[in-house]
Amino acid sequence: MTGDLANLESTIQAVEAAGVTTLHVDILDGRFSPSMPIGLETAKRIREVTSMTLDAHVMSTDNDYFVQEMLNIGMDSVTFHVEGTRHVDRLLRVIQRSGAKSSLALNPATPLNVLDWVLPEVDKVCLMLINPGYATDASEAQVPYALKKISALRALLDSTRSEVVLQVDGRVSLESVPSLVAAGARDLVLGSTSLFRKGATLAENKLLLDVAVREGLDRAVQVAA
Amino acid sequence: MTGDLANLESTIQAVEAAGVTTLHVDILDGRFSPSMPIGLETAKRIREVTSMTLDAHVMSTDNDYFVQEMLNIGMDSVTFHVEGTRHVDRLLRVIQRSGAKSSLALNPATPLNVLDWVLPEVDKVCLMLINPGYATDASEAQVPYALKKISALRALLDSTRSEVVLQVDGRVSLESVPSLVAAGARDLVLGSTSLFRKGATLAENKLLLDVAVREGLDRAVQVAA
Amino acid sequence: MTGDLANLESTIQAVEAAGVTTLHVDILDGRFSPSMPIGLETAKRIREVTSMTLDAHVMSTDNDYFVQEMLNIGMDSVTFHVEGTRHVDRLLRVIQRSGAKSSLALNPATPLNVLDWVLPEVDKVCLMLINPGYATDASEAQVPYALKKISALRALLDSTRSEVVLQVDGRVSLESVPSLVAAGARDLVLGSTSLFRKGATLAENKLLLDVAVREGLDRAVQVAA
Amino acid sequence: MTGDLANLESTIQAVEAAGVTTLHVDILDGRFSPSMPIGLETAKRIREVTSMTLDAHVMSTDNDYFVQEMLNIGMDSVTFHVEGTRHVDRLLRVIQRSGAKSSLALNPATPLNVLDWVLPEVDKVCLMLINPGYATDASEAQVPYALKKISALRALLDSTRSEVVLQVDGRVSLESVPSLVAAGARDLVLGSTSLFRKGATLAENKLLLDVAVREGLDRAVQVAA
Amino acid sequence: MTGDLANLESTIQAVEAAGVTTLHVDILDGRFSPSMPIGLETAKRIREVTSMTLDAHVMSTDNDYFVQEMLNIGMDSVTFHVEGTRHVDRLLRVIQRSGAKSSLALNPATPLNVLDWVLPEVDKVCLMLINPGYATDASEAQVPYALKKISALRALLDSTRSEVVLQVDGRVSLESVPSLVAAGARDLVLGSTSLFRKGATLAENKLLLDVAVREGLDRAVQVAA
Amino acid sequence: MTGDLANLESTIQAVEAAGVTTLHVDILDGRFSPSMPIGLETAKRIREVTSMTLDAHVMSTDNDYFVQEMLNIGMDSVTFHVEGTRHVDRLLRVIQRSGAKSSLALNPATPLNVLDWVLPEVDKVCLMLINPGYATDASEAQVPYALKKISALRALLDSTRSEVVLQVDGRVSLESVPSLVAAGARDLVLGSTSLFRKGATLAENKLLLDVAVREGLDRAVQVAA
Repeated sequence: MTGDLANLESTIQAVEAAGVTTLHVDILDGRFSPSMPIGLETAKRIREVTSMTLDAHVMSTDNDYFVQEMLNIGMDSVTFHVEGTRHVDRLLRVIQRSGAKSSLALNPATPLNVLDWVLPEVDKVCLMLINPGYATDASEAQVPYALKKISALRALLDSTRSEVVLQVDGRVSLESVPSLVAAGARDLVLGSTSLFRKGATLAENKLLLDVAVREGLDRAVQVAA
Repeated sequence: MTGDLANLESTIQAVEAAGVTTLHVDILDGRFSPSMPIGLETAKRIREVTSMTLDAHVMSTDNDYFVQEMLNIGMDSVTFHVEGTRHVDRLLRVIQRSGAKSSLALNPATPLNVLDWVLPEVDKVCLMLINPGYATDASEAQVPYALKKISALRALLDSTRSEVVLQVDGRVSLESVPSLVAAGARDLVLGSTSLFRKGATLAENKLLLDVAVREGLDRAVQVAA
Repeated sequence: MTGDLANLESTIQAVEAAGVTTLHVDILDGRFSPSMPIGLETAKRIREVTSMTLDAHVMSTDNDYFVQEMLNIGMDSVTFHVEGTRHVDRLLRVIQRSGAKSSLALNPATPLNVLDWVLPEVDKVCLMLINPGYATDASEAQVPYALKKISALRALLDSTRSEVVLQVDGRVSLESVPSLVAAGARDLVLGSTSLFRKGATLAENKLLLDVAVREGLDRAVQVAA
Repeated sequence: MTGDLANLESTIQAVEAAGVTTLHVDILDGRFSPSMPIGLETAKRIREVTSMTLDAHVMSTDNDYFVQEMLNIGMDSVTFHVEGTRHVDRLLRVIQRSGAKSSLALNPATPLNVLDWVLPEVDKVCLMLINPGYATDASEAQVPYALKKISALRALLDSTRSEVVLQVDGRVSLESVPSLVAAGARDLVLGSTSLFRKGATLAENKLLLDVAVREGLDRAVQVAA
Repeated sequence: MTGDLANLESTIQAVEAAGVTTLHVDILDGRFSPSMPIGLETAKRIREVTSMTLDAHVMSTDNDYFVQEMLNIGMDSVTFHVEGTRHVDRLLRVIQRSGAKSSLALNPATPLNVLDWVLPEVDKVCLMLINPGYATDASEAQVPYALKKISALRALLDSTRSEVVLQVDGRVSLESVPSLVAAGARDLVLGSTSLFRKGATLAENKLLLDVAVREGLDRAVQVAA
Repeated sequence: MTGDLANLESTIQAVEAAGVTTLHVDILDGRFSPSMPIGLETAKRIREVTSMTLDAHVMSTDNDYFVQEMLNIGMDSVTFHVEGTRHVDRLLRVIQRSGAKSSLALNPATPLNVLDWVLPEVDKVCLMLINPGYATDASEAQVPYALKKISALRALLDSTRSEVVLQVDGRVSLESVPSLVAAGARDLVLGSTSLFRKGATLAENKLLLDVAVREGLDRAVQVAA
């Protein structure tokens, strides 16, 4: 959610009108990272004012609490970070039993082998391309190994014909979309450098993004061909 | 802030139109209590869309971080809890140097003597009349010793001709306002059982509240006479 | 509970046969103090094998969790420490709503004014006469100010005709009982230096304790007369 | 230990009479997981009343403290979790110097490469087949990748002719024993679904388990042949 | 210790030569406050190179560890803060058993009643006149209620003919010494604004300090007369 | 830094005179390990009295704070541990932006794959050969898999023609240097068993070390040839 927090309902309506079907909701607790953009009551109101698919991304030091709150609110999918989570498998079960989609997020430096046993158990993996919670730091670019890490996970998924969705998050810009998709990303968290890019309407940005995604998919096919 | 988080700007305009001059903003981190209603970006937007006086109430386990964020946002006054704060005097200085009003909050069971040395250093003391962060628990009433504690602090302030404001927070209802004011409260945090009471407009509730406050003040004078 | 943990059921039967009506169950989490004598499953089994009154004393850094577990098990009264508890009033309500008796414990150095507002809200106050969790340290005697602190709380209770029970805990020996009772204690936590004193049967110790208590009460009356 | 905590001594005698030679003692601190079944004094009494081999499994957030307590009590082997342990090698040395067998436990989702450098340093590895500390949650089944993970560790051990024992823990039932053993498990933590299965005596269950283990070993040989 | 950390031995010799008999050693862990000036090995070396009385002031979040380290090093007196210490009485016993003098420190905002039960148990009380650990912040002055708090503790001590030493710490300057002593301070922690004042030798500063102390004592006598 | 903390300036001059060009400064916070040898003010003074290259090794539970302090002091390179660091990539950027060299340290048991994505981002990797912070424990030898782990990282670096420096730390003795260097170490943290070995001058030890390093390099070449 990159939008006008003072006018959430109308912002969400505009996003939906632009053809977007999923809203990504970041929940940070100020401890995982020095950032706590929105709160649980706001998340609850988002759920009440829209029937779009809601994809919650929890970045907290108390996942047991925050993941459960996301489920109570009625999020359609819940992502949590492996870093610092002691009972990863347990939390995935809690999400699955609730009927929501489950997803794991990895910080940039986190090795892919944290997925060794639970990759077949999740619906989605979210690769962070920036260090989460420091986004307001304008000088924070995507990590230089972003595409390499996406490709590695893509290869891992393809080699097992896995249907797990590969999501990428962090400074996903209109310009970088084709490369990210070509490398293997299939779900893009869009923010101020893409869908909410200034100087264009949401609908215009959405259109350009669709083109960029297609370009990325075409490149991906060429690589595979 | 008890209002429509999906339409904050219009809610705030309505509150202001009803003649309210101060907005109380609760910031909880999910750790101090199991509650994190709104986030920092939302607080920032509130600041941007209104020039009303903003009174931030921080309930966190990391006051150094959250109090500073409130100051960065431009809150007019910042309250933090003494419970668990190691350097109470220090944090008061930080607030004062920024130009904001400083205030201490006390949980219901907390003795008044935590104010022994810093009472003359603050602009306001906030007495919690309920256990903060459990407000959604409908059965949670004001503590039975609410009026007694207000009176004790009132006496303490009056005996030193102190101008420190006595604020009360927690289930301040239209019905309880006269007693709270008569006991010594001079600043009321209003929510769903007073200003935002259902079945009446904000303006109507505001009017009734003004009457209730006056009734309380009258009673207070009679006691003193 | 000072008893044979390998033969709990028979130990409890023996205690009950000796005419004792209440079992005191200490629950420590190894964090509040370096001690974790018994666990929750053991506490549960104690509840199952006896209908004696069970008085749980929680010494933990996570009272929300452990107090709730005590209530789930069906303890008749639950005590927790004020030290480090942020929402003292809240936890008292949780206990009361469950139907159990509520009680606060104070470490030796803790001032009595932590009771300022909640004393009328509790059924019992437990004064620690030793530093809890270090009992295995044989050189650990009762603090020198034990009687003085008991007397002070007794005076406080008597001055308000309060029926709150004054319990003392820590090296309550047969020899010290008269003085403790005379000072104002009305509930004694008995252990290896009294009820379970070696060289005598439980019944014999119980008898001697009854005499010692009476002696203390007599002295108390003389003081008051 | 799945047994009658109110009659530990007789339970242990019955287990020993049934031909079991090792008792598995779980020590949880209520923080690693929301569970704290038994305490240190109980563990100590177990040591006093039996000369069976005692295998302690520590699941705590303060391994330095709890592992040392296990050694003080005289456990024959001590297992701790790699998750959240900063100085894994150090703690292994502490156990080894005491003369006890050392062992590492891995939660279900934990990758095997945490063993990269310390596998030759331990006597045993314990693979958790359920999320530890949530066992009372009846719907908690073995993770679907249990056999795959056992096989992978078995292969790793066999490839280096390692004599490290592969232990499995979590809902080890009479029915699953053959598969678990065939996959490579050589040490089974037995509980309410195997040795303590209702409707049969300990001795009967022990007999059935011996048969199940043999069946598993036979299958293992066939695979290798 | 305000001295040249690169030339500790010669600095200490100079201090001793100036007629100072006690060295005050601050041990901060970077958690109690954002400051960790010296370490334990440095403290140990100080002990080795001088036979002056060493007065250690621990400001940490793990007093059990740091107080014990101070005792191991051979400090003559050890001070710790009441803020956040759960077992205050226990830690005092640990210090006393070692033969060292025991002392409690209070942050500026901390009420004096934390001393209610343990004042007769300590050798010294240290009142912080600034918020400890922020001393490098040049704008940090003594709290405005410094003299008032010193006087209150002095009165408390005098009323019980207590011999407990009243120490003050924080921006004790040559100019403020007479007032601090007149108010009741009997032990002054000297630093960069007194003993180590620039523009004068240690010996000169020491001389001026002796005069200032005498002036303060004279004033104190006049008040009492 | 293994030197005389009471006479740091002269010790450092002697080290420099012996031809050493880099000083290794260990910063421990007493939490990461039970050790806090020197403090931040001491580190600052080291920076002031020498222009040698300063290599800071932070072993803390609050890397955000301590790494930043090292940069403020002007350290030439800063190392921090991956264990328990949530935002590894972020902290590397913070160091790099300051102009200092960045480096990651790994405890003995830590797998090399924690370097999977950030190896090309660092200037140095420090392999701990002992458990850091327990060095005073004389029985603590290098881990048995020290050479094997060095070789594995060496192979990894060589296979990518990486110029990342391989540093080893922990009981690097004169005797072990040839093997360590032959296995692939290129930067040695020298202490009481090498450069500061008793019975010889710093200069003599330095000379012997140079010979030992050359021997190791020769062996390394032979292996490669």
